[in-house]
Amino acid sequence: MSDKKAIQECYPAEYDVCYGCGSHNPAGLQIKSFEREGGETFCRFVPRSDHTAFAGFLFGGVIASVVDCHGTATAAAAAARAEGREIGSQPPLRFVTASLKVDFIKPTPLGEIEVRAKVTEIKGRKVIVAATVHAQGEITCKGEIVCVKLPDSMKPK
Amino acid sequence: MSDKKAIQECYPAEYDVCYGCGSHNPAGLQIKSFEREGGETFCRFVPRSDHTAFAGFLFGGVIASVVDCHGTATAAAAAARAEGREIGSQPPLRFVTASLKVDFIKPTPLGEIEVRAKVTEIKGRKVIVAATVHAQGEITCKGEIVCVKLPDSMKPK
Repeated sequence: MSDKKAIQECYPAEYDVCYGCGSHNPAGLQIKSFEREGGETFCRFVPRSDHTAFAGFLFGGVIASVVDCHGTATAAAAAARAEGREIGSQPPLRFVTASLKVDFIKPTPLGEIEVRAKVTEIKGRKVIVAATVHAQGEITCKGEIVCVKLPDSMKPK
Repeated sequence: MSDKKAIQECYPAEYDVCYGCGSHNPAGLQIKSFEREGGETFCRFVPRSDHTAFAGFLFGGVIASVVDCHGTATAAAAAARAEGREIGSQPPLRFVTASLKVDFIKPTPLGEIEVRAKVTEIKGRKVIVAATVHAQGEITCKGEIVCVKLPDSMKPK
């Protein structure tokens, strides 16, 4: 896997309809996550002009959405590595969010953000991810995402 | 204030452009929160068909967005009550989110949700709100929103 193909683009199509990150959801936010050296993942996201909280600032719910999808992508990539295989290989590795926490340290300007993340724990079906949100050279938010392997009850038919 | 006018509709127009709940953001989610007996607030939200996580389930980032905006609205209403005045009175009472946590207890079906919330603490500029997300008669998520009074740096010019 290289930086050229997003983690989400390695999900099978039927697992890839998420409003936040689904390549097959044309109305969605189309968040794309990548791995880079040192076990870190990153995701650059350019919000729309209507993604405001107040004039000039990015809505926290959009930030939470990006952190959420980037967290589950980071978990999928880490689980693949832990199993010694590629993220796109069978059976599919797809995670959902059990718990999402975002601390809004300072207002995030309405413009490109980069979310960076690292896995802090892998245990059984659970992967915990820590994230930071960067805007204009500053960390504006911190996130923690507790991810679990997709339960059978949510698997696409 | 009655159940007929949403808390967000009492915000001054320049504070009401949020993607999640701004009445003046036509592209936004237009979340509306109301007070009811017993100090509880509620918000009913019907997601779009593209607000999916997986087929048939609601995206967690949209849930987080509704919980977020409903939390700050609940904080504004509670702060108004604590000051013995109406939410729409001057000076404006508008809160932002310092921290947002959502626990996804079970998958939320893609359909109407109701978020219910209560204030658990008011202290100075800070209001802490606890929320539950209800879908098809079940609690699917729990949220905690730490809200703070809008800082001067974010006030619309």
